[in-house]
Amino acid sequence: MGTEAVEDDADDADTSDAHDAYDALLDRVRRWNTVGSAAGVLGWDQQVMMPEGGTPARSRQLSTLSSIRHEMITDAETGDLLDTLADADLTDEQAAVVREVSREYERADAVPRRLVEEISEASTEALQAWEKAKDENDFDRFAPHLQRHVELKREYADHIDPDRDPYEVLFEEYEPCLSMERTEAILDELRETLVPLIDAIRASDADLAVDTFEGKFPEDEQEALARDALDLVGYDFDRGRLDVSSHPFTSGNQFDCRITTRFDESDPLAAVGSTIHEYGHAQYALGLPQKHFGTPLGDDRDLSVHESQSRLFENHVGRSRAFWERFLPTFQEQFPETDDATVEDAYEAVNQVYEDNLIRVEADELTYHLHIVVRFEIERDLVRGDLAVEDVPETWNDKYEQYLGIRPDTDSEGCLQDIHWSHGNFGYFPTYSLGSVMAAQLYAAAEHDIDDLDDKITAGEFEPLQEWLAENVHQHGSRYETNELVKRATGEALSADAFTDYVEAKYGELYGV
Amino acid sequence: MGTEAVEDDADDADTSDAHDAYDALLDRVRRWNTVGSAAGVLGWDQQVMMPEGGTPARSRQLSTLSSIRHEMITDAETGDLLDTLADADLTDEQAAVVREVSREYERADAVPRRLVEEISEASTEALQAWEKAKDENDFDRFAPHLQRHVELKREYADHIDPDRDPYEVLFEEYEPCLSMERTEAILDELRETLVPLIDAIRASDADLAVDTFEGKFPEDEQEALARDALDLVGYDFDRGRLDVSSHPFTSGNQFDCRITTRFDESDPLAAVGSTIHEYGHAQYALGLPQKHFGTPLGDDRDLSVHESQSRLFENHVGRSRAFWERFLPTFQEQFPETDDATVEDAYEAVNQVYEDNLIRVEADELTYHLHIVVRFEIERDLVRGDLAVEDVPETWNDKYEQYLGIRPDTDSEGCLQDIHWSHGNFGYFPTYSLGSVMAAQLYAAAEHDIDDLDDKITAGEFEPLQEWLAENVHQHGSRYETNELVKRATGEALSADAFTDYVEAKYGELYGV
Repeated sequence: MGTEAVEDDADDADTSDAHDAYDALLDRVRRWNTVGSAAGVLGWDQQVMMPEGGTPARSRQLSTLSSIRHEMITDAETGDLLDTLADADLTDEQAAVVREVSREYERADAVPRRLVEEISEASTEALQAWEKAKDENDFDRFAPHLQRHVELKREYADHIDPDRDPYEVLFEEYEPCLSMERTEAILDELRETLVPLIDAIRASDADLAVDTFEGKFPEDEQEALARDALDLVGYDFDRGRLDVSSHPFTSGNQFDCRITTRFDESDPLAAVGSTIHEYGHAQYALGLPQKHFGTPLGDDRDLSVHESQSRLFENHVGRSRAFWERFLPTFQEQFPETDDATVEDAYEAVNQVYEDNLIRVEADELTYHLHIVVRFEIERDLVRGDLAVEDVPETWNDKYEQYLGIRPDTDSEGCLQDIHWSHGNFGYFPTYSLGSVMAAQLYAAAEHDIDDLDDKITAGEFEPLQEWLAENVHQHGSRYETNELVKRATGEALSADAFTDYVEAKYGELYGV
Repeated sequence: MGTEAVEDDADDADTSDAHDAYDALLDRVRRWNTVGSAAGVLGWDQQVMMPEGGTPARSRQLSTLSSIRHEMITDAETGDLLDTLADADLTDEQAAVVREVSREYERADAVPRRLVEEISEASTEALQAWEKAKDENDFDRFAPHLQRHVELKREYADHIDPDRDPYEVLFEEYEPCLSMERTEAILDELRETLVPLIDAIRASDADLAVDTFEGKFPEDEQEALARDALDLVGYDFDRGRLDVSSHPFTSGNQFDCRITTRFDESDPLAAVGSTIHEYGHAQYALGLPQKHFGTPLGDDRDLSVHESQSRLFENHVGRSRAFWERFLPTFQEQFPETDDATVEDAYEAVNQVYEDNLIRVEADELTYHLHIVVRFEIERDLVRGDLAVEDVPETWNDKYEQYLGIRPDTDSEGCLQDIHWSHGNFGYFPTYSLGSVMAAQLYAAAEHDIDDLDDKITAGEFEPLQEWLAENVHQHGSRYETNELVKRATGEALSADAFTDYVEAKYGELYGV
């Protein structure tokens, strides 16, 4: 045998080593993700089913599973396998798995477990302080906890990469594949478009039919209506459930993904919107490939893409004339007292732009993003050290006045309204707006690709839209990074353009501006 | 320093080593038991809440948690710590923990993981075959799976102790602290007492009021009634839930223990009995010491003791005149059509001895144990190699004829009726009868210790009984082995005497025999 034959053998060995390493890595990843999905079931149960007294046992179960998962990820064997695979000749699919697992491994490995636990403990304390502070309109009670979170999260970012903007590093916890530069550009464009648009709407003399759906609508009928809406859009109850919880959420995987909602007796339209929003999340999870359960190829592409799926259904479907043409008769069957309402009344009611709403979760489709911009600018500056915790309330109120033309009277209605900072989740808020922007871009592409999409929705034919989303988004899992996914689906990089076109056309027509 | 001082130092080191080893062992045990309790939540969800499509993900979650738990138990470190503690000077409490953990470790360590997985896979296949075989009355379809389970379980027992009776070894999986000798003696005594007693009852001309509660009783009212019963006996809904499932069961721990029940529209008395039965299980779990969660001191003392708590409430409370004095008015509020029924009618209805019932789960308090004796004798002989699988149907039918005077027409109503053998759970059945026997012995002791217990029950005062059970049973967790626990609570070793006294007195009076 000559040298070449020896080289061939060596090549074979390399290929076989890489093959074995890949299989071993995949086994490990499946295992830790399966532990994560088990913890997800416990989290769902905690919020939906668990009796109050169960908390101590549940906390220990969840922290034990979390620490087992962390140990599996950071095990030296994970690093060795990734080293073996770093220069190996991999298929695109394998390369995507290695890319995603490497990112997760590097972050988990960089941050000491002690710090993760410290943040978790700080969150428990901060959450209690925040609840009290919000109840009693007492920012000072929460301030030291916010300060502590800023310090711990800076330390966290520093472990991951001491040379980069710590806010960007934290943002990547929720959206790892979009740059801060692009994100800031999108949020700037939203602010620049929406502030004048909202001003014009307020200055207009349009008179929308906002009182048509006033009254008292019992919860049982609202729940039946929510189920009607889910049946219409095509939720698969053999792989899901609808329950009630204090904060609506979606939880699960491609085999079993469950929705919760809540009901306000004075506002049945909100329940419909919220249920369809959660349906969009669930449909994404249920559309992930079953054979890749537990691996990045069967896992969702992070928060912005997830939110794009919920916003697409909430806004582009649920706030369209086409949807209400179909759904209003169903609504009126549950609530015959609204028999006089027209489709146009419903369309106007679900699309009204509020004059004086201070609360993010009650915001309309336009002002919503200014709520986000305020939070983004404040948390970014806090983490970067450009804003002191004590100055948060004043800054918050000034920005609300500047962007939305309203000023909170209390911190409870101001900078204490959201739970996110009590968990130290800096960098989470932008993903909400990124999701909306992405929803608009995806929906425009779907409208382009599907003939007469509006007519199909009015006819109750949701399959073409579902198939388009499954083919262009759901089936890919985390195979592509966010921008690549968006480009493949829409032909363009992610930008705010489709969103600004959409709102300018829609609200221009509605308000005559 | 002289020799003594050196010895003192050595003693200190020993003590300190043992102390550290005990703490380390306890940490490990808490961790694996917490994983086990997390799996318990997933199991509850699977039976009560999970949509059908969720099965593939749930199976993987449960098998992953099971394998993680097994790895933790059998980790070499567990064995090393137990070795260190084997000859250490321990408190009684510590010694109890080491005894229980050693038993679990030795069994888990002795059996190869491969065999555990093989049994689990065989069970999945056997379960499907059993369901079909039962549906189609086709024992031959199930026979090869039963044969496979017999072989696998013999192999399992052989790994644990090749020198002992394999059936005894398997029985210890469910009841590790009672000898087979005592168990066989108890079951023999039950058979010898009950066969003639039931013969005498059938020969008697007593005419019990068994038709009083015939009719159709809607599920919603039955559920309200089940909640009334739970409120009466004192179930803490802040630490539990009541749901519906196809097979009633109880699942949870000292912080959160949940009950399920089921409803038969023609038989509201069955739902009351079943709910109170599960309540007894739940009350045991909820009475375990919270501070010992995740350790043997906070864990139940296996199946016989668990069943004693459920049977005590189902039979000694729920089938008593005292209970129906209290509960009949509540029953009649839910079901006014039964207003003519007297307490004696209710007492007779819940205590009727069936003439021709072939089904264990529908059996009365007396014939029940003959159903168990048949199963015990057959599975014991199967595992010992004294009975061939092909002879099971004939043997089953002969024994039913011999002990109960009835012969099944089909195997579906005969040896195919129970799920247990499709899981390979040989040795489980006897714990049902041991639980009844223990319930009678404990209740007799409680009646002795608590003045006018009957009057208290009629007055709705359940605290004295609960406190007696908490003090004598629940609070001890697995601190004492079963016999020691029973002796401390009742002054006597476990025997069938209290049970035979109870049934002879009760049914003698009811049927005049």
